[in-house]
Amino acid sequence: MIAAVRPSISTMPGLTIGDTIPDLELETTHGKIKIHDYVGDSFCIIFSHPADFTPVCTTELGGMAKCMPEFQKSGVKLLGVSCDDVESHKEWIKDVESFTPGSHVRYPIAADPKREAIKQLNMVDPDEKDAEGKPLPSRALHIVGPDRKVKASMLYPASTGRSMEEVVRVVQSLQLAAKYMVATPVNWKPGDPVVISPGVSDEEAKRMFPQGFEVKDLPSKKGYLRFTQIES
Amino acid sequence: MIAAVRPSISTMPGLTIGDTIPDLELETTHGKIKIHDYVGDSFCIIFSHPADFTPVCTTELGGMAKCMPEFQKSGVKLLGVSCDDVESHKEWIKDVESFTPGSHVRYPIAADPKREAIKQLNMVDPDEKDAEGKPLPSRALHIVGPDRKVKASMLYPASTGRSMEEVVRVVQSLQLAAKYMVATPVNWKPGDPVVISPGVSDEEAKRMFPQGFEVKDLPSKKGYLRFTQIES
Repeated sequence: MIAAVRPSISTMPGLTIGDTIPDLELETTHGKIKIHDYVGDSFCIIFSHPADFTPVCTTELGGMAKCMPEFQKSGVKLLGVSCDDVESHKEWIKDVESFTPGSHVRYPIAADPKREAIKQLNMVDPDEKDAEGKPLPSRALHIVGPDRKVKASMLYPASTGRSMEEVVRVVQSLQLAAKYMVATPVNWKPGDPVVISPGVSDEEAKRMFPQGFEVKDLPSKKGYLRFTQIES
Repeated sequence: MIAAVRPSISTMPGLTIGDTIPDLELETTHGKIKIHDYVGDSFCIIFSHPADFTPVCTTELGGMAKCMPEFQKSGVKLLGVSCDDVESHKEWIKDVESFTPGSHVRYPIAADPKREAIKQLNMVDPDEKDAEGKPLPSRALHIVGPDRKVKASMLYPASTGRSMEEVVRVVQSLQLAAKYMVATPVNWKPGDPVVISPGVSDEEAKRMFPQGFEVKDLPSKKGYLRFTQIES
C-alpha cells in the first residue's frame, strides 16, 4: 500500500490571493492577538521581516511606522511578524525609531520563534537561515480585506526592502475597487483617472459615473478602455 | 480503498520565492517556448494578465513594452501569459501599441487556454472567471533568476495595475544583491546608497567596499546598519 503523499508546507505553501488568512493566535508586542479579531472589518497589512537588529528591516519598520497616519486615514491596520521574541522586538524598536525620525512603531509585531505562523502565512525564505540553521522569514507582505481574504501579496527576499509608495498605492487601488466598479491602470497613482470594469455596460456606466467617462479609440473598436475620474 | 487526497492546485498553489520555476512548454506569439531554455542565464520576468481586450491589461502590457530598453540594458527577459489564444494576442497587441505610443510588444505572450500553466505558476485569481465560468489569471509577476528560481513575486488582483517603476526597482535591487554583498533599504531607488549584508564583518567590508561605508549610531550600539555607495 502506498501512503498518501501530501506536499510538505515548506515546499508547497498555500497562502495566495483569494485565500482566507489563517486565524492564528499570535504573541505580539501588544499582547495576544487572534488574526481575524485583529483584522475586524478593516483592511490589514500583515508583513514579515527576516530578523530584528538587521539593516533593511530597521529601515522598513520605520518606513511602515512613518506611513501610519496615511494608513489610519484609510482605516488600514498593520501587523508585523518575525521569529524573534517580544523582548527583542521591544528593544529593537528603539533602533527603528532612532533611525527614522518622526516614526513611532504603534503597530503590533508578532513573535514566531517556532516558525509556525511564517509557514502558514507563506512567509518563509528558503535561502535564509539563522545561526542555528532555522528558517527565517522573507520580506512577505499580504494585504488582507475586511472579508479576511488576501487581496494582494508582495513576496520579496531579505535583500530587497519594500517601497512604501507602492504599498500605499496598492492599498488605495484595492479600496477604490472595493467601493466602485473600477480598476487602476498601469502606473496609476492616487488621484489619477481610473478605468471602468469590463463587466459594466456603457448604459450602466452612464448611471454609475455621472461625471462622465472617456472611451479610448483603439484599432479593435471594441470600446473596452474607458477612463473616468473618481473624487477621493 | 480510499484514494490519496492531494490538495487541489487551486486551493494550494505551490510556486513561491525560492522555488524553481516549472519548465513548462508554452505556445506563444513567438512560437513554442520551454521556460528554462527561454530564461537561459538571464533574469526573466514572467507575468500574467487576466484577459486580452480588457482595460488594465492593455495599459500594463504597453507599460512593460515601454520599459523594454531598460530591461534589455539589464539583460532581463520578459514573458507574458494569459488564457487567450495566440491569434487573440496578436490582434490585441495592435490595441496595446496604439494606446501606449512608442511601445513595441517585442516579448512573447504565452497562450494557456487549458489553464495548466497559470495553475502551476501560481497565477490563478479565484475571484475571476470568464463567461464560461473558467478560471482567469491574476495579475501575477515572478522575477526569476539565472538559476531559474523565483527571487520575488508580486501577486495583484485584476483590479490593480502594476507599477513599472516598482518592477524595475526590484529587478535592480535583485541584480545588485546578486553581484555584491549588499541589500537595498526601504524606498531605495537606483543610485541611492545600499546597506552591507549582516553576514559581512567590518574587516571584510573594508576590503569589499574600498569606497568606505557609514555605520549608523543606534541605541543598541550593535553597528549593524552600514551604508555604502555602489557605482552602477
